[in-house]
Amino acid sequence: MSAAIFVGGAVPALANDELMGMMDDPKQWVIQTGDYANTRFSELEQINKENVGDLQVAWTFSTGVLRGHEGGPLVVGNMMYVTTPFPNVVYALDLNQEGRIVWKYEPQQDPNVIAVMCCDTVNRGAAYANNTIFLHQADTTVVALDAMTGEVKWTKQNGDPSAGQTNTATVLPVKDMILVGVSGGEYGVRGHLTAYDMATGEQRWRAYSTGPDEEMLVDPQQTTVLGEPIGENSSLESWEGDQWQLGGGTTWGWYSYDPELDLVYYGTGNPSTWNPSQRPGDNKWSMTIMARDPDDGMAKWFYQKTPHDEWDYDGVNENILVDQEIDGEMRQLLVNFDRNGFVYTMDRATGELIDAKKYDPAVNWATEVDLNPESETYGRPQVVADYSTREAGEDTNVEGICPAALGSKDQQPASFSPETGLFYVPTNHVCMDYEPFRVSYTAGQPYVGATLSMYPAPDSHGGMGNFIAWDARTGEIKWSLPEQFSVWSGALATAGDVVFYGTLEGYLKAVDAETGEELYRFKTPSGIIGNVTTYEHEGKQYIAVLSGIGGWAGIGLAAGLTNPNEGLGAVGGYAALSEYTALGGQLTVFALPD
Amino acid sequence: MSAAIFVGGAVPALANDELMGMMDDPKQWVIQTGDYANTRFSELEQINKENVGDLQVAWTFSTGVLRGHEGGPLVVGNMMYVTTPFPNVVYALDLNQEGRIVWKYEPQQDPNVIAVMCCDTVNRGAAYANNTIFLHQADTTVVALDAMTGEVKWTKQNGDPSAGQTNTATVLPVKDMILVGVSGGEYGVRGHLTAYDMATGEQRWRAYSTGPDEEMLVDPQQTTVLGEPIGENSSLESWEGDQWQLGGGTTWGWYSYDPELDLVYYGTGNPSTWNPSQRPGDNKWSMTIMARDPDDGMAKWFYQKTPHDEWDYDGVNENILVDQEIDGEMRQLLVNFDRNGFVYTMDRATGELIDAKKYDPAVNWATEVDLNPESETYGRPQVVADYSTREAGEDTNVEGICPAALGSKDQQPASFSPETGLFYVPTNHVCMDYEPFRVSYTAGQPYVGATLSMYPAPDSHGGMGNFIAWDARTGEIKWSLPEQFSVWSGALATAGDVVFYGTLEGYLKAVDAETGEELYRFKTPSGIIGNVTTYEHEGKQYIAVLSGIGGWAGIGLAAGLTNPNEGLGAVGGYAALSEYTALGGQLTVFALPD
Ligand SMILES: O=C(O)c1cc(C(=O)O)c2c(n1)C(=O)C(=O)c1cc(C(=O)O)[nH]c1-2
Ligand SMILES: O=C(O)c1cc(C(=O)O)c2c(n1)C(=O)C(=O)c1cc(C(=O)O)[nH]c1-2
Repeated sequence: MSAAIFVGGAVPALANDELMGMMDDPKQWVIQTGDYANTRFSELEQINKENVGDLQVAWTFSTGVLRGHEGGPLVVGNMMYVTTPFPNVVYALDLNQEGRIVWKYEPQQDPNVIAVMCCDTVNRGAAYANNTIFLHQADTTVVALDAMTGEVKWTKQNGDPSAGQTNTATVLPVKDMILVGVSGGEYGVRGHLTAYDMATGEQRWRAYSTGPDEEMLVDPQQTTVLGEPIGENSSLESWEGDQWQLGGGTTWGWYSYDPELDLVYYGTGNPSTWNPSQRPGDNKWSMTIMARDPDDGMAKWFYQKTPHDEWDYDGVNENILVDQEIDGEMRQLLVNFDRNGFVYTMDRATGELIDAKKYDPAVNWATEVDLNPESETYGRPQVVADYSTREAGEDTNVEGICPAALGSKDQQPASFSPETGLFYVPTNHVCMDYEPFRVSYTAGQPYVGATLSMYPAPDSHGGMGNFIAWDARTGEIKWSLPEQFSVWSGALATAGDVVFYGTLEGYLKAVDAETGEELYRFKTPSGIIGNVTTYEHEGKQYIAVLSGIGGWAGIGLAAGLTNPNEGLGAVGGYAALSEYTALGGQLTVFALPD
Repeated sequence: MSAAIFVGGAVPALANDELMGMMDDPKQWVIQTGDYANTRFSELEQINKENVGDLQVAWTFSTGVLRGHEGGPLVVGNMMYVTTPFPNVVYALDLNQEGRIVWKYEPQQDPNVIAVMCCDTVNRGAAYANNTIFLHQADTTVVALDAMTGEVKWTKQNGDPSAGQTNTATVLPVKDMILVGVSGGEYGVRGHLTAYDMATGEQRWRAYSTGPDEEMLVDPQQTTVLGEPIGENSSLESWEGDQWQLGGGTTWGWYSYDPELDLVYYGTGNPSTWNPSQRPGDNKWSMTIMARDPDDGMAKWFYQKTPHDEWDYDGVNENILVDQEIDGEMRQLLVNFDRNGFVYTMDRATGELIDAKKYDPAVNWATEVDLNPESETYGRPQVVADYSTREAGEDTNVEGICPAALGSKDQQPASFSPETGLFYVPTNHVCMDYEPFRVSYTAGQPYVGATLSMYPAPDSHGGMGNFIAWDARTGEIKWSLPEQFSVWSGALATAGDVVFYGTLEGYLKAVDAETGEELYRFKTPSGIIGNVTTYEHEGKQYIAVLSGIGGWAGIGLAAGLTNPNEGLGAVGGYAALSEYTALGGQLTVFALPD
């Protein structure tokens, strides 16, 4: 059995060689995902499974902002860049001086945007390219900052917060462009991915998630779905009337890029509203993995994971690009741990569906995904009628659906180690009751249409999360570590055979990549929903993570909500978090003793 | 030469034996000052000068509140108590579970109080006694909380925030009472010390700092000043008209207690306003060390350090009670490092002035304190006319006064080691320009009357602080460590021959108690204005400190002020702090590796 992380070979002429070289340098961490393939794997091995137990805190930094701290620090040369939740401060810290502040960018944003952010005031961080730090603010201002001075090079408005358009995602620098998404699925926002010129901020293209082919940048003949041409206006036909205009499919998750295939990958979110009776049809192309040509945005292939969503299983989780041997054949894979509880293994060149399996045995809303290419329902989940909120109808509370709306896994990114060939996945182990109700649309107002309550998966270990190792070659969970709360932090695997993740109580944990055995834990100041990163500075390997409870799971603490159904249903299930942690906003940097 | 820390001998019948026993137990830290004598010394020696370099962060805790974190954690048995700035949250943390939150008390206070707090929203922490945690909130609510459950036992309103009466100080439990002060010298508040019954909250007595003898609890014959009876209505005669009613002399600093002498010691703040021309006279008894009988509050002796203040040198700093040999004789001393730059050594039984020396050579507003008992000006500072803001008169800017208004040392408490016989003093090395102007009084409005600007002491090391070792037996600085910013953190000396303090940049530092050599430093998340404490849990010694930039020195960052003259003149001098640290609110706990 062999496994190899994606390594760029012959790349197109326009490639951003400098940036790709920096991504290949394990000492730096220049985009949020670490690399284009979204593996979150580091070749560094000074900290390894033999010595990780000796880890110490090297230095710390308070960001001066409370609420959920997602994403993580970037490291570019001797500089570290840290981004905060709203108001989205960016700090440039000097690693030669234990984090002395070289510059600080503090945008003036209208705080009204906070009210139209569904799931806390999070921001998944900035990205570096071409001596520039690119940030996409909550109010959808895209900003380019001189990496040395913090000076604003250009700003561009990507959306309209008064219509519920906001942003929480990072941006992806590809070639000479910056790709950016949009949030607002709970406000009837119609999602899109937009490319801006890195140097000038000029818009290159915009691809909507729903609507007419021209606006979706879809070619009825060339764009494929499971190997077949997509056909004309495939989205329009899957909605009643003009509902696609309020159709959601927002693009608030992670973006990947394969420089060899020259394809960008990302997923689209839930169709709006959460009341499925208001939107008959498959609601294309919400809940879809999309592969596009970055040069013009044209769609190469789509795959809709959850047609006609009835549970808010946004399809935006990271698509991890790995080359692995499946049934004796090396394949160019895209692996996606979807919110709906299935992990999809696809051929990333063609969009072929290779496998789809539950990665949490608690998943009950569907029995399986039809993998038979000859079948009428090829590629579709086989929905269990008892858990269909559409069949139950409006104003009926459907109980015991697993996973809950925040999925078997939300945006917290998994990691892949080419050394073990395993995926390390932060998961939720949460179920829900879901009662849809009719809503009408008003721009800038919540457009949700369901009342939810969440609780730990029943008949299990009693906790709300697991940290698992998944083998995509066999489609099996190798090991699973029960956690009291959802694991809402991104994982990091390293060549030291160690995997790191954070917990909502605030622990940074290090486990053995082969066995899952816990090797180290440290209680950081606040709950961790940030993503663990690593870098090397002056010969020393560091591990860095942001603390600051929040995100959807921590919304009760972050926004001071106590009614169990508030926070889109998350407050009740995570109420016990207040016995472990309080709001924060800190970076903790770890290293081995000298 | 010998030195001994005060140890209680025969104590009066009403003594709180349990509490005094807990203060004597170095494993616990039950009141903010560590002990009644305010030595901030610990007998613990597991961490010592040989191994302190190996110190590691054991665990951390974010308080969920930003701005200045003064005071420090209490440790009572297995429980730790942490208090935050406004809104004055109290956390009870379980030390057996790395700070799991056992209970949280979060008062609902009118946020309007923030506007009438002169020097940030700080609170110098809670105190423990009789299974109760006592807290004095910003809005002057005194509250008694069940130490196990956090349940409110009683609350009492000590003042009126709408008239500018607020609180930042800790409380002192003495016998069956709680002693509490009041802030508001910049709002024309007339200071007082008040005793409440520990069990019921009933008021026992209140002693004003200014006014008629009955209200000041002064006996014209029995109360002495430098050995002489104080005489009738000594305060009233030292003010023009009714100005004493707006006279300041607030009591926002530290309180000490000598159980053997059965005397409580504390200092009073500046007279109001800062424009001396509006208040001719000595302005008694502002700027005064007071010794009182805790049972009825009656004054035993007073000593006014800065008669007719012209520089805002509040006299509230801690009075450290030590027994040391002076000129071959063991003396019961009270040592006070005053804001005005003189350290006063007094006989704490009689109020005799033994010595007064400058502890920062930069001090220039007075040449010396007259120590000749035969002199007309006995006990008075010899003011240098050039630096008299009264002589210059209203609307004249007096330049180059040292120290600045925040003193050679502000409230940040010093520590005394009976092992070295030295005092370890966090100091400011800052000078100022001071321009008084006429103001009129409106209740609840600032009543300041001077424009200040501050800067590092000229012709020196360029920094704004020093951490010094002072020998009261010889009246000399033993060593002095230059710091870029004022040292605004309280010191801790231990039997391990180590002294700890924090810096405004956020470093916790450990130095050799004899030589001052730096043995360890760690960059905590935010600037440190908290006081370092230590305790033992399950056989292990811990060092704990709060980070969170603020207080008067950090007011620019804390309140988001940028005009150099804002923040009562402190913003400009400390502007460079923003290159080192951002707002925070974290506890960092250190220990040696296992
Ligand atoms: O539909 C959307 O536009 C949208 C946006 C976001 C977001 O931007 O954070 C989340 C979600 N949906 C969502 O469904 C969700 O579970 C979620 C979790 C989080 C988070 O950061 O913890 N954000 C979001
Ligand atoms: O006159 C007063 O009532 C009063 C109150 C306070 C306070 O309560 O914090 C300070 C001061 N004055 C003051 O003069 C001063 O230097 C000061 C510093 C600080 C601080 O916590 O950093 N508080 C205060």
